[in-house]
Amino acid sequence: MDEFELIRRYFASQSMRRNDVRLGIGDDAAILQVPAGQELVASVDSLLAGVHFPTDLPAQAIGHRALAVNLSDLAAMGAEPAWALLALSLPQADLDWIQEFAHGFLALATRYQVALVGGNLARGPLNIAVTVHGFVPTGQALTRKGARAGDQVFVSGWLGDAAAGLRHLQAHTLATAADSGVQRFCFPEPRIHAGLALRGIASAAIDISDGLAADLGHLLEASGVGAQLEVGQLPLSASLLQHATREQAINLALSGGDDYELCFSVPRERMILLESRQHEFGCPVTRIGEITAAKTLQCLRNDRTEWPLRATGYQHF
Amino acid sequence: MDEFELIRRYFASQSMRRNDVRLGIGDDAAILQVPAGQELVASVDSLLAGVHFPTDLPAQAIGHRALAVNLSDLAAMGAEPAWALLALSLPQADLDWIQEFAHGFLALATRYQVALVGGNLARGPLNIAVTVHGFVPTGQALTRKGARAGDQVFVSGWLGDAAAGLRHLQAHTLATAADSGVQRFCFPEPRIHAGLALRGIASAAIDISDGLAADLGHLLEASGVGAQLEVGQLPLSASLLQHATREQAINLALSGGDDYELCFSVPRERMILLESRQHEFGCPVTRIGEITAAKTLQCLRNDRTEWPLRATGYQHF
Repeated sequence: MDEFELIRRYFASQSMRRNDVRLGIGDDAAILQVPAGQELVASVDSLLAGVHFPTDLPAQAIGHRALAVNLSDLAAMGAEPAWALLALSLPQADLDWIQEFAHGFLALATRYQVALVGGNLARGPLNIAVTVHGFVPTGQALTRKGARAGDQVFVSGWLGDAAAGLRHLQAHTLATAADSGVQRFCFPEPRIHAGLALRGIASAAIDISDGLAADLGHLLEASGVGAQLEVGQLPLSASLLQHATREQAINLALSGGDDYELCFSVPRERMILLESRQHEFGCPVTRIGEITAAKTLQCLRNDRTEWPLRATGYQHF
Repeated sequence: MDEFELIRRYFASQSMRRNDVRLGIGDDAAILQVPAGQELVASVDSLLAGVHFPTDLPAQAIGHRALAVNLSDLAAMGAEPAWALLALSLPQADLDWIQEFAHGFLALATRYQVALVGGNLARGPLNIAVTVHGFVPTGQALTRKGARAGDQVFVSGWLGDAAAGLRHLQAHTLATAADSGVQRFCFPEPRIHAGLALRGIASAAIDISDGLAADLGHLLEASGVGAQLEVGQLPLSASLLQHATREQAINLALSGGDDYELCFSVPRERMILLESRQHEFGCPVTRIGEITAAKTLQCLRNDRTEWPLRATGYQHF
């Protein structure tokens, strides 16, 4: 079976249809229609075996993750997902693996109404590059820039579970589906609904891929501000606290990575708006601190003593 | 230097600016504006060391090729290039290599007014996935579908040089810049101007990456037709015929690959239009055959005997 037949059989034929796709997979390029009044939001991210996930991760989880980490970028911009393109390199044409991978990728795509409109398969070390596209009404995108001193800092969902799950996976070669951290690592949920609900509310937003401290750091840098976090407020799941001490859990939340939650700032006068839309988020939202004029990131315990930040985030090189 | 700093220093700061880029590299995603009345054309292609090019190819050529093969897909659709996103995996942060790669990539990008709007750097085996975007007035894109019996078949530029150049490179570890085939392999010229000039003229079009026979085969399949080619008409460069017999040159043209020329069909009544726009193409255009109702691809010598087609195209798996 050649590249084109593989793409047709496992991807193109299973992908959802959208009316704004004039021409999908099967020509030299896709032809797409961006609705009037909307801006296009686009992002690319790649996953490499052994770097971004353990080599023996189930193919379905790899497929899900590859799309989820990209949808998470759209969520952080407040964009509504629309289209994806996939460049997949894999060592051999293992049809079972491809089918499982496609299943994980396309199940998530369908859930968020994403059509796969371009594909490229090549033989090589496992490497998955995904480009995603979404829409946002002109001028309404959330960005990292815009947080002001006094804004309140929030985070969606729970932090630290995925990092704990990854450690669990690394210690036990076989993934145990029972562990909820492993589930969070394998099948992160992009916070699309939260991102949409935050339009007109958040002054700045970012998704958490490298750990809260590192990614909030990017937001602070882009906005030219700092923040004080209350580590006692960090949303830690009951299951995380079953396997880790509170101190370990806080460090996983601050520096663990792979959470794919949203971190965002909200001006005080819009807190009431945030509350009124809370049912749209699809997950809890927790206040964890405040933006400061001083351009540092400070983490405080309940007794106002400082929590020392460890090295922040993943160094790619 | 981390991923973000590398992207900023070597890519983002060197990329051209466009007014339709509301937000470029540096946030979770880019924010882009598609002009009214235009459709978006999008494609992804990846290049792997050792698969799509020799591992020791100069970084500047790899950067050029990675974008060129993608722009060639836009050319085949008759699209005007606009934006690119780059997912680059490389074994180590070799700053000289990255600078040369960026130079090759961005020089070509600037020549065709392409802004780099998204980037991702990861450590791993050399792998370059590029997503490109272009515009085409609504309904005017060229596709593979639309060739009708009696249409004339054309090809842009020259065929076979790049395949000869690749063989030369494989035989001599050091690339000799003097060889024009090597130049054609290292620095393919996407036929953007030809693609734009073919709007409203070509009934179908495709770019030639896997060899004329294989890629024309895709066009014929999509259009539900066949073709008769006259091998005596294939455009073979003087430099190709210096290094190869005519028979070898014809086989390279038919099955060699890496040409990145356009192959397209033109209804007889539009031949005069084609002639009138020839100065817009930026390269010669040669009639090489005719579309037939019989769904086969036949190659004929000048004496009307059949030229046997060898295995067509590159098998990706």
